[in-house]
Amino acid sequence: MKLRFKLPAIIFCLVFLTGNGDAQDPVTAPSNHQISDYQPTANRIIEAGRNQNDSYLKLQELCDDIGHRLSGSESLERAIEWAQQSMKSDGQENVRAEAVTIRKWVRGHESCELIEPRSMKIDMLGLGWSVGTPSEGITAEVIVVKNKEELDSLPDEKIKDKIVVFNFPMPQYSESQGSGYGTAVQYRSNGAKWAAERGGLAALIRSVTAYSLVSPHTGAMRYDAETPKVPTAAISVEAAMMLNRLQDRGKKPVVRLKMEAEDQGEAPSANVIGEIVGSEKPDEIVVIGGHIDSWDVGQGAQDDGAGCVVSMEAINILRKLGLRPKRTIRVVLWTNEENGMAGARSYAARHQKDDHVAGIESDSGGFTPQGLSVDLEDEKKEQVALRQLMEVLKLLEPIGATRAEIGGSGADVGQLKALGAACMGLNVDGRLYFNTHHTWADTVDKVNPKELTDCAITLAVAAFVIADMPQRLGDAE
Amino acid sequence: MKLRFKLPAIIFCLVFLTGNGDAQDPVTAPSNHQISDYQPTANRIIEAGRNQNDSYLKLQELCDDIGHRLSGSESLERAIEWAQQSMKSDGQENVRAEAVTIRKWVRGHESCELIEPRSMKIDMLGLGWSVGTPSEGITAEVIVVKNKEELDSLPDEKIKDKIVVFNFPMPQYSESQGSGYGTAVQYRSNGAKWAAERGGLAALIRSVTAYSLVSPHTGAMRYDAETPKVPTAAISVEAAMMLNRLQDRGKKPVVRLKMEAEDQGEAPSANVIGEIVGSEKPDEIVVIGGHIDSWDVGQGAQDDGAGCVVSMEAINILRKLGLRPKRTIRVVLWTNEENGMAGARSYAARHQKDDHVAGIESDSGGFTPQGLSVDLEDEKKEQVALRQLMEVLKLLEPIGATRAEIGGSGADVGQLKALGAACMGLNVDGRLYFNTHHTWADTVDKVNPKELTDCAITLAVAAFVIADMPQRLGDAE
Repeated sequence: MKLRFKLPAIIFCLVFLTGNGDAQDPVTAPSNHQISDYQPTANRIIEAGRNQNDSYLKLQELCDDIGHRLSGSESLERAIEWAQQSMKSDGQENVRAEAVTIRKWVRGHESCELIEPRSMKIDMLGLGWSVGTPSEGITAEVIVVKNKEELDSLPDEKIKDKIVVFNFPMPQYSESQGSGYGTAVQYRSNGAKWAAERGGLAALIRSVTAYSLVSPHTGAMRYDAETPKVPTAAISVEAAMMLNRLQDRGKKPVVRLKMEAEDQGEAPSANVIGEIVGSEKPDEIVVIGGHIDSWDVGQGAQDDGAGCVVSMEAINILRKLGLRPKRTIRVVLWTNEENGMAGARSYAARHQKDDHVAGIESDSGGFTPQGLSVDLEDEKKEQVALRQLMEVLKLLEPIGATRAEIGGSGADVGQLKALGAACMGLNVDGRLYFNTHHTWADTVDKVNPKELTDCAITLAVAAFVIADMPQRLGDAE
Repeated sequence: MKLRFKLPAIIFCLVFLTGNGDAQDPVTAPSNHQISDYQPTANRIIEAGRNQNDSYLKLQELCDDIGHRLSGSESLERAIEWAQQSMKSDGQENVRAEAVTIRKWVRGHESCELIEPRSMKIDMLGLGWSVGTPSEGITAEVIVVKNKEELDSLPDEKIKDKIVVFNFPMPQYSESQGSGYGTAVQYRSNGAKWAAERGGLAALIRSVTAYSLVSPHTGAMRYDAETPKVPTAAISVEAAMMLNRLQDRGKKPVVRLKMEAEDQGEAPSANVIGEIVGSEKPDEIVVIGGHIDSWDVGQGAQDDGAGCVVSMEAINILRKLGLRPKRTIRVVLWTNEENGMAGARSYAARHQKDDHVAGIESDSGGFTPQGLSVDLEDEKKEQVALRQLMEVLKLLEPIGATRAEIGGSGADVGQLKALGAACMGLNVDGRLYFNTHHTWADTVDKVNPKELTDCAITLAVAAFVIADMPQRLGDAE
């Protein structure tokens, strides 16, 4: 199979014979090419993707049949196996799992309850890498602060031996400012350290979201070497606000926090890889991918089941059309993005000698695609790449994903920046992403099949053109 | 106190002496009055309400300090006590609890889990009045239907001994159609009966909401005398959709439902009442109110803590301004609206000889007020009342609550229709109400203090003018 597809002339014949193709299509661009010459090919990809696309089926197989997939869990093992089987049955090449050693954190049982002024369960999710509490829990009065500045302004005796509640509200999404996640997530990352530095016994973080229906949002936190490790959890927005109101009215709320969370040390995992091997420059690689792990709640559908299946389906659309580019398109489904990044680091280390032209990460959900961001270590190349991407994205005018911009890519693909790759991110309509991010509500129903399809198409067109065009992305012509 | 306030001249003096009043205000309208003459009074109510208003404080006392309030619960008893104390300390008259016998339904422990094709908890809330399951639960394959028509189209063998899942989606809110609740709630009310008629073992209802973050919505259901009583619960939208997807892909999901729910028979409760007694026609009564009970989840903040506190605060604003109308304004906080209506029926029976001019119910949440609906048994009077209301609501131009319409009022106040009262409902911006309705997320933070204040002001202005104007609402001049 592989040899046959490496011969462009035969590809051309195959495309012709399938009846899907137009013999005039520039499957291989002429030497005096323009990126716009790819429009007929892009149109074929768009049409094929919209007519028959298995992204949503794959998402159901991953999320409904397997469920959430925390690093070190059996369900992640099953997902890694499923992804290989799925890509093999699609006819992808060099499908394999590459072993990665991760650290395994487990949540265990956990609970939070209001003890005073009345009894009430508080919806919560422990934060990834938090230590647990003693088995009897930690029972203490809370001190609620709106932000770090308010904590800094308080005398030690107001904080010592208290459970510190950070009631910092994530800003509402806006077109100009985006989600406000970057600001609010500082509390999730650092709250335990900030509390412990001042003598607090634990830290409870208002969930990082601008809309809540009593839906706690987990996510990773970090300790530093100097500060005692105190347990930390996200509580619902509703609970954080209620504790703040009670405090404002002179009550002294008392909370009991119980967490069995623990770091269980090293465990095996794997990245999953599948390829369309390039016809002329197989050693030049365009990576597309997402992360196969998720948090241990919900279904990891938008984060990042969607990114995985649209990457898998992008090369599936190309393969079914018989479209083999000159360079290799490699799908990478990274493990352990959520709580360790071991997959991305392992991939970058293992493949540091591979010639990565570009990497496109999809880790913002399978919403309506808007375009691509690009981030290159070399600023001149970055500017060239931006202009080239503008041309590439013009091909996606029929689905509206036309916006090229300089900007961050994704946590996994970002590991390839130092290797000289153009790190790219699939940008999508971000209005709803953080409503469900890292919650029980990150489920398949939140993904719209048409929007998911358009993400797969965007990746297919962008990856194909970048992998096929004569000039290398970022190189001046 | 009461005697003194019954003398209009003294009221006038009091208003004058408080310094809040303008001696020119038509506290009592002249005989050749127009409703528009009340504009200065309305402006004073609006200004006073906006400057100092305890609606939000009252809501916190009710919802944060007490919490949810199911009929028959200790917390409802506390709420009934709190409401009396609060109105007494505000200086309201004839504050009392009127005993009501309710039936007590309790949820007990409950759970729902997917057994096949994999293990997963299913978020659920048993429906009010459902029977429980055997202690080992009911474990059975599910049959998912999109609607009643699909159920009707299936042969008996597809339904018999199955757990029937009704995956009917509540339509999205629209300005023209409203919430779509009326359509979807049929499944909650009747699903158990429809399942049992065909041999189903239990009924699981997709939660009645157009937006979910894994948030099950409880609510009342009903059995009939002819059909076996099978247990019934609302499951999250997410779970209902997943079960449907699994079935569509040929899987045979198996679910275990456990519910301890039971009807515990009769129990005592009470409606709470407080008044501003009318200065000239104290026996003509304008009722305003909401229901003090709630479901046993969340805080019953929008449903219907808001309705209670804005009614309480409406007369408090009037009292603080020294505004005593000719007729009596009676605040009624009904018990048992959610699962029995015993409070409203008891009130109507006990007060059937009272001369109810009108009743305004606030049971749609404390959102931005839009106006009032009116519903009168006598159609001619209804048309007169509508025209009068249009004039009354013009007074609320400064807060935008100007829309008068013919339409349903509320479940509690509706009991007064047969007594000849103009039954009225406070209409509010309904876009978000059903996101939290009957869920753990019906919490104080969902209520905006300014919007709540505007509801209290709307009730205060409408109740005052209807209670004070020379002509009776609905009577031609």
